[in-house]
Amino acid sequence: MYKQFAITAITLLLTVTSQAPSWAGRVLDRIRQTGVITAGARTDAIPFGYKNEKGEWVGYSLDILELIRQETEKQLGKPIKLQLVEVTPENRFTKIKDQSIDIECGSTTVTWAREKEVDFSVSYFASGTKLLVKKGSQLETVESLAGMRIGVIPNTTNEKAIKFQQPAAQLVTVKDRLEGLQKLEKGEIDGFASDGIILEGLKQTASNSNALEIVPEYPYMYESYACVIPQDESQWRDLVNYSLIQYMGGIVSDQQSAVSIYERWFGFNGKVPYSRENINSYFQGIIDTYEWIPLIDY
Amino acid sequence: MYKQFAITAITLLLTVTSQAPSWAGRVLDRIRQTGVITAGARTDAIPFGYKNEKGEWVGYSLDILELIRQETEKQLGKPIKLQLVEVTPENRFTKIKDQSIDIECGSTTVTWAREKEVDFSVSYFASGTKLLVKKGSQLETVESLAGMRIGVIPNTTNEKAIKFQQPAAQLVTVKDRLEGLQKLEKGEIDGFASDGIILEGLKQTASNSNALEIVPEYPYMYESYACVIPQDESQWRDLVNYSLIQYMGGIVSDQQSAVSIYERWFGFNGKVPYSRENINSYFQGIIDTYEWIPLIDY
Repeated sequence: MYKQFAITAITLLLTVTSQAPSWAGRVLDRIRQTGVITAGARTDAIPFGYKNEKGEWVGYSLDILELIRQETEKQLGKPIKLQLVEVTPENRFTKIKDQSIDIECGSTTVTWAREKEVDFSVSYFASGTKLLVKKGSQLETVESLAGMRIGVIPNTTNEKAIKFQQPAAQLVTVKDRLEGLQKLEKGEIDGFASDGIILEGLKQTASNSNALEIVPEYPYMYESYACVIPQDESQWRDLVNYSLIQYMGGIVSDQQSAVSIYERWFGFNGKVPYSRENINSYFQGIIDTYEWIPLIDY
Repeated sequence: MYKQFAITAITLLLTVTSQAPSWAGRVLDRIRQTGVITAGARTDAIPFGYKNEKGEWVGYSLDILELIRQETEKQLGKPIKLQLVEVTPENRFTKIKDQSIDIECGSTTVTWAREKEVDFSVSYFASGTKLLVKKGSQLETVESLAGMRIGVIPNTTNEKAIKFQQPAAQLVTVKDRLEGLQKLEKGEIDGFASDGIILEGLKQTASNSNALEIVPEYPYMYESYACVIPQDESQWRDLVNYSLIQYMGGIVSDQQSAVSIYERWFGFNGKVPYSRENINSYFQGIIDTYEWIPLIDY
């Protein structure tokens, strides 16, 4: 706290840094040797990783992996290629643990149970529990949910979120999203709870789309998407985090090259439109906890 | 993203979790064997770690370490003691690197250069660059700094923050905080830039304290304080992070036992008063990127 100590620390730091070892660790050593990052991605998780109409493998997380590749190339000072490997929810953690892949970026959410098996990067996307309701329903605040009939799919994080935020909500079990939408349209429930980004897609499929809305602006509870990396690989995680936070800095600063990546997938004309305000506020919260990174143009 | 995959993942997760290894890693193995967490703390960093009037070693970071001790005891299922070791800005990173301490919690800020040597927990306090100004100065927004004379101590993160946020500000070098205050009082500068929490203390020492104010409400740039831990100790970091995020959950939920820890040091009648709104918003940003943790009473 004393500024004189801070200055000493800065001097010390500069000394330490110039003697710092170059990037090291099992994963980084392998990447340096082979010139390849082996990365797991999804083929079925729109818009994170999927096959488009032309059969091309595309998605937000593939673009994110490309940013990580560029930064790795810069830090290691040699050309680095990205080799994509298809992963599924069933095999993604195994492949990370046996290090047959160096990283997985898809739609994997951060949980404490998973932290015991693998490590996570900083979160690079957030969805979270919201409600699909009829316009003018007055449902929005946590308080407004008390006593209301809220449709939930059992055992989802959405069910957990509504139970936690408003124990007095009346939960109605539905078997899938379609049934949730139908019950809402028939007036059998007052709202249907799911991930904000899922509800955006569901609302588009409704016949009476204009009569529906998604509330509240910020989710009742967030669900954090992050890249998965092997445990005990601190410097690899640092490099991944640095790439991601640099990108987030571009997003909150409205930097064209960063924003264009986001907008391609989540913009108004993107694959699955999702509020920029939500993600800006979420990214800012992450950026604030790290040292500021100068922006670069991609 | 597809809920059916999420459900599969949850099922898979429960299976994986029940087979999960117990907490492991060099640090956790040592703590389990010795029954002791060896923790570095400061004796000169008010209110993070210092000797009080009675000569007792106290502070916010010592209270935080006690929370980590309690959680470690719970997770390892055996009594764990905390052994405090005095560290300085000069030796704190060396002691972490040679593992003579398992963790250091003080007033260490997160930087990317340091990340190459050590790991950081999630940030457990944030200060950041603000300005001490005369009341009614109109200085507050980034735009308002253009052309204004802003006092800075050279080579500080505060100097860097003002330069970055408003390149058109006119920087005036001062040698220390006292000179900054004097120049402000004499009208030789329009504002003095330093850490918000440092300015709170400085303002209290001014003869004309009531004529001064600190702006803006949220810092121009944050500086993140975190605990330091050895690299490549993922599970130890998870346990530390879990303890810290659980505490933050208590703070943003106004839970009495968590809030009383914060208020003891940063409350209105605490050692160095610091805005709860600032810290709530900062902690919420961290909490949002992790899975929700049930609150506990300390």
